[in-house]
Amino acid sequence: MRRLLAVTLVVFAWTGAGSMARAQAGKDESTIRAAITAQAEAWNRGDIPAFMESYEHSPETTFIGVNIGRGYEKILERYQKNYTTREQMGTLTFKDVEVRMLPGSCGRAEFAVVTGRFHLERSQKGEATKDDGIFSLVWRKGPQGWKIVLDHTS
Amino acid sequence: MRRLLAVTLVVFAWTGAGSMARAQAGKDESTIRAAITAQAEAWNRGDIPAFMESYEHSPETTFIGVNIGRGYEKILERYQKNYTTREQMGTLTFKDVEVRMLPGSCGRAEFAVVTGRFHLERSQKGEATKDDGIFSLVWRKGPQGWKIVLDHTS
Repeated sequence: MRRLLAVTLVVFAWTGAGSMARAQAGKDESTIRAAITAQAEAWNRGDIPAFMESYEHSPETTFIGVNIGRGYEKILERYQKNYTTREQMGTLTFKDVEVRMLPGSCGRAEFAVVTGRFHLERSQKGEATKDDGIFSLVWRKGPQGWKIVLDHTS
Repeated sequence: MRRLLAVTLVVFAWTGAGSMARAQAGKDESTIRAAITAQAEAWNRGDIPAFMESYEHSPETTFIGVNIGRGYEKILERYQKNYTTREQMGTLTFKDVEVRMLPGSCGRAEFAVVTGRFHLERSQKGEATKDDGIFSLVWRKGPQGWKIVLDHTS
């Protein structure tokens, strides 16, 4: 009887831990999806610095477009140089956004990969001529919360 | 005196742990770089299945080229369809390969991002027409060892 109770408790604890981990993963995914939605909203009101808030503020943060660029400040400068007017920014929409949480061996998910497509609807082009493309993002949950450490857009 | 000894021991333990973590990160980076070198060698002897060994054998493994493809088998099929002859495969070289280890909060690095450029020297083109490009890879240290979970090539 005691043994049955012990087994039952272990099973409860195990399924409990499993559902807690799933709940946390769901919460993390929601946080990332909300940050992506906030990025589109920031872009669509012409606010590049707010759009940039999803990137990790680090000299190692990497953006790959036509070239490989490193550093938060460089990425910000690149956006400001490539999109100089509200018309060049246009309206940004994302679709087919998929979030894959990547749990590590200590249980918590601290990394995630996000893939999707973007579309720019606009009346004017600047240095950046691409209106449609695919992106992959690596997100990390660090001291600044969930932030992008790598953005590859093609 | 006892206190000094205790502090000294803590400092030794701390720097010891730090240098152990750095040594492990260096070992992980070497493992990843060796796998990338082995990939180029496999490619250059026309062995796509051996080239594929660096990818995680999972239906979630993702390859982004012109489109987003998911699943180890699909990636393998795509390579076999796009490169049907030894001449179409040509000689693959990588350059500007940078490995960024991404340690999580449990101490060990279980994720890494690799960026770089590829070049194909070949006499014949098949379905894949790109001879030069940029890639970003997400590597994960899982039960199969260090493997690619995401490849974005553009």
